[in-house]
Amino acid sequence: MVRDSVVGPWDIIWQKMNTAVLLLSTPTSFARKGAVAAMCQFLIAHKGSVLHCDDHLDSSRDLSLSRLEWDLDGFDIPVSDFEEQFRPLAEQYRINYHLALTAYRPKIAILVSAYDHCLADLLYRQKAGELKCDIVRIISNHTTAQPLADFYHVPFHLLTNPDDKRICEQEVVELLGQDVDLIVLARYMQILGPDFVAQYLLRMINIHHSFLPAFVGAKPYHQAFQRGVKLIGASSHYVTAALDEGPIIEQDVVRVSHRDTVEDMLYKGRDLEKVVLSRAVRWHLENRILVYQNKTVVFV
Amino acid sequence: MVRDSVVGPWDIIWQKMNTAVLLLSTPTSFARKGAVAAMCQFLIAHKGSVLHCDDHLDSSRDLSLSRLEWDLDGFDIPVSDFEEQFRPLAEQYRINYHLALTAYRPKIAILVSAYDHCLADLLYRQKAGELKCDIVRIISNHTTAQPLADFYHVPFHLLTNPDDKRICEQEVVELLGQDVDLIVLARYMQILGPDFVAQYLLRMINIHHSFLPAFVGAKPYHQAFQRGVKLIGASSHYVTAALDEGPIIEQDVVRVSHRDTVEDMLYKGRDLEKVVLSRAVRWHLENRILVYQNKTVVFV
Amino acid sequence: MVRDSVVGPWDIIWQKMNTAVLLLSTPTSFARKGAVAAMCQFLIAHKGSVLHCDDHLDSSRDLSLSRLEWDLDGFDIPVSDFEEQFRPLAEQYRINYHLALTAYRPKIAILVSAYDHCLADLLYRQKAGELKCDIVRIISNHTTAQPLADFYHVPFHLLTNPDDKRICEQEVVELLGQDVDLIVLARYMQILGPDFVAQYLLRMINIHHSFLPAFVGAKPYHQAFQRGVKLIGASSHYVTAALDEGPIIEQDVVRVSHRDTVEDMLYKGRDLEKVVLSRAVRWHLENRILVYQNKTVVFV
Amino acid sequence: MVRDSVVGPWDIIWQKMNTAVLLLSTPTSFARKGAVAAMCQFLIAHKGSVLHCDDHLDSSRDLSLSRLEWDLDGFDIPVSDFEEQFRPLAEQYRINYHLALTAYRPKIAILVSAYDHCLADLLYRQKAGELKCDIVRIISNHTTAQPLADFYHVPFHLLTNPDDKRICEQEVVELLGQDVDLIVLARYMQILGPDFVAQYLLRMINIHHSFLPAFVGAKPYHQAFQRGVKLIGASSHYVTAALDEGPIIEQDVVRVSHRDTVEDMLYKGRDLEKVVLSRAVRWHLENRILVYQNKTVVFV
Repeated sequence: MVRDSVVGPWDIIWQKMNTAVLLLSTPTSFARKGAVAAMCQFLIAHKGSVLHCDDHLDSSRDLSLSRLEWDLDGFDIPVSDFEEQFRPLAEQYRINYHLALTAYRPKIAILVSAYDHCLADLLYRQKAGELKCDIVRIISNHTTAQPLADFYHVPFHLLTNPDDKRICEQEVVELLGQDVDLIVLARYMQILGPDFVAQYLLRMINIHHSFLPAFVGAKPYHQAFQRGVKLIGASSHYVTAALDEGPIIEQDVVRVSHRDTVEDMLYKGRDLEKVVLSRAVRWHLENRILVYQNKTVVFV
Repeated sequence: MVRDSVVGPWDIIWQKMNTAVLLLSTPTSFARKGAVAAMCQFLIAHKGSVLHCDDHLDSSRDLSLSRLEWDLDGFDIPVSDFEEQFRPLAEQYRINYHLALTAYRPKIAILVSAYDHCLADLLYRQKAGELKCDIVRIISNHTTAQPLADFYHVPFHLLTNPDDKRICEQEVVELLGQDVDLIVLARYMQILGPDFVAQYLLRMINIHHSFLPAFVGAKPYHQAFQRGVKLIGASSHYVTAALDEGPIIEQDVVRVSHRDTVEDMLYKGRDLEKVVLSRAVRWHLENRILVYQNKTVVFV
Repeated sequence: MVRDSVVGPWDIIWQKMNTAVLLLSTPTSFARKGAVAAMCQFLIAHKGSVLHCDDHLDSSRDLSLSRLEWDLDGFDIPVSDFEEQFRPLAEQYRINYHLALTAYRPKIAILVSAYDHCLADLLYRQKAGELKCDIVRIISNHTTAQPLADFYHVPFHLLTNPDDKRICEQEVVELLGQDVDLIVLARYMQILGPDFVAQYLLRMINIHHSFLPAFVGAKPYHQAFQRGVKLIGASSHYVTAALDEGPIIEQDVVRVSHRDTVEDMLYKGRDLEKVVLSRAVRWHLENRILVYQNKTVVFV
Repeated sequence: MVRDSVVGPWDIIWQKMNTAVLLLSTPTSFARKGAVAAMCQFLIAHKGSVLHCDDHLDSSRDLSLSRLEWDLDGFDIPVSDFEEQFRPLAEQYRINYHLALTAYRPKIAILVSAYDHCLADLLYRQKAGELKCDIVRIISNHTTAQPLADFYHVPFHLLTNPDDKRICEQEVVELLGQDVDLIVLARYMQILGPDFVAQYLLRMINIHHSFLPAFVGAKPYHQAFQRGVKLIGASSHYVTAALDEGPIIEQDVVRVSHRDTVEDMLYKGRDLEKVVLSRAVRWHLENRILVYQNKTVVFV
């Protein structure tokens, strides 16, 4: 039994946050000449206070990857001028970078089919303040998700022609356009075409219910049962044109035994899928993921 | 991306089930004389087909514990006559037993305070068919849970005098009486009195947000943060009069590091609490748990 | 700091054991007619005291699989007569069975190449009493293992022609013949031919340093690094003619991140390999593994 | 089956390493003024190439903690002059620091009682190159460890008066003095006195066979069995005067069930103890651990 006082919800923590995040990469030779130090001094010179600085050196790729987060309170460069003022430094050290503001609430859309456990999980987490974003639309080829969407006041769209993948994809593009920061495939049971994927590259996260690269494709739990593995897994990844081969963001496993039927695996797997997908979405929203060479660096 | 056809939900599997479960204990000396074999033959003689037989010998306690499940289709003893017909065998082998029918849907009530993640999780699982039971009532000392209760069509009761524990307990007893098979404390933030506990002994499951016996009592995540542990845990247990000392049903842990604040631990812990509590509830509902000597045997 | 008194080693526990184990399978229809109960009563009628009875019903294969262990003290059938006396029952219920005596110490041989961590681990465990067996020979295509073999007083054989696989296999067969109960491939870096495998079917256990079926074949850690997985694994399995496709006995995983180089994975993986291989060997020696349909049932 | 070519051992990797590591702490207010950036620029100005920079802000303690590693090849400050040249910066930003050179091989001593599994594990790892150190002495109150010590060519000392703790401690101090960088208590079954502990503060690592703070003191597996926990653990920590209350370095757990006897827990626990202790020793040797407020920051 627990008797905690109620602590303030995440939303309060996040409301107070007014920081900027830089995800960046530099050739190692430039990194060694002090790229990160130069950036820190640039920020400090402009009255930015560095909160987090995490870096990683991939010696096999000759690349240095970093995540810098600093406080915008007192920072004397307006966001709109940042690029211009930062450019000389970026050029000097050959820095590729992506700037994000934590005050911004990303807009996400969720695609789902009949299984709605990941959807229900994401909706609850968003409402509880675990995911800092607005869920602007739920799109499905089944009606199952409608009541949940209504309960959480998210516009629900039923695809008009679920049997024709290309029409479905067109419909999604028309609905969402580029006015969405992230698409989450929360057990959406359609293989997406390369054109569709290309439009949302590195902005579309899928959950695959196996420990990739094992059991690519359909019915992975059935495949796992057939092979007699002793652990089953789930993997979240960015969607690329090659099926289930995009950069892996997170994976986890759970133990199974001969006593587990395929139905037991489906049941155990659902818990995996929920946490593995939601972690990926959270890290993406918090600008913690850097992708290169079809792999992810997750700064946690 | 996944392209499974939709498999039948658990409700369909369970509708087809018409089995009986015996949880039983025998002194080892009688067990060795063939108590389980005698029972199996008794069942088979009455045209019961044994589906599962799991047993465990606790040599330190001189006790043999078993779970027997058999098909009732064709079984020629009516349930109402079982006790009478089984008695001679039970006496011969000094068998203590509990009989349960899988066709019966247990009635459960959930007590909850302000944190509603475990409640939301249990409601979703029940609806999805993961938990074979009817949730007959949600009782709370906060209004937070009202919308979820409404969405899932479960009667919600707000305690009228949340500051007075004894009045709260009386109110719960008046509402539920003995017409409930299980009470789940889904983060209910009140220490329960011994009289209340006694009324629902081994029929009340709590989730404690630490790896028991570490961090008993209030604010366990704060205690864990203070101590600098490298893993945090959650424990589900039957409630007894001694705070957080009842028989443990399930535990799990997740890794933390110096980077995790107390808030991060609360966040990571919620995922633990949900799975650890729901597993305990499921195993209880499936008659898989046998308690003795303040410990549980979970037949999975 | 710990202040335990020294408890008795496993060898003492095992010396006292004088039990028999039956691993058996029956068609489900016969199982339901009481095959296990009939066997228990057969044992009890002959003054055998049943210590453990574990069974598993594979409904998809229409097969019931069991492990029965009973005390031989007082059992009135001599082991040499068991088969004859048990035959009528076996025929009546169509039981396939394997009988093992825990008093027997299996003889095992270990094949190893340059990496000797699994070898060192197995030798230590055997000496510490964790593995009830005699290690009768270590065979290698490298000299690395010689000092460890000498320290543990196990005859060491260096293959005379390590570049020719077939000659190596012949040499192993000549050395071991059928006078060995189990061959452990403790990181033996040669693909074995089908004839060799056939001679030791279900008596040869390999450790593969990946989470099978992912990363079959050579350099799995390099493959895992390349793919960017977030967990790496190890798998122990019985060797069959198809490379890395034999029945899996045990698997485990450990978390990796972008900070882990291939060398770090090799380092982390070694700890996995040791526990995953040694568990498999232990379960095999304790007659806990039943193989069917290229899968294992492990009664633990 | 595996067919890797043999990769170079860790010793080769380490021989090539010629780096320096700074573990440092700064008040947050100074950290925000650019302490880390200033240090990086100091290093770069002296032709040091920064390889790793990891930092952590503990906002509840107003402290910023960092680990900096840089290449000494080309670094133009001789190590003997580092302190003098670095002092102005350290004073300006109120930096507390510890400097370590990876070229230095620390000297460690191991204290052990009758259980030698952790000892055997550490000796093997050191020889295999996993632990960059020299094991200069093994000290024990039992003779069990003598053969292992001889095999690995480490001087072995048997305590002359094992029943008198104070004499034992005096003997250890006389043997080791301050000429040892780390003492590892590899299941040494004596409670150490505060004077002894004080001499080796933060230079003495113990393995406790429970998930601390649960089951402090003697016979933790027996305590765990008694309580009926579903996971057992092991914890490595720096030794302080308060029994089992020093800063925790690493912890891990393994699942147990009602089927596990105390002996099974001892067996499963040994595997935990080995990895949990060896990880702590490795991180200490690699200068990855920073201790403050009785907690550790492990930069991995």
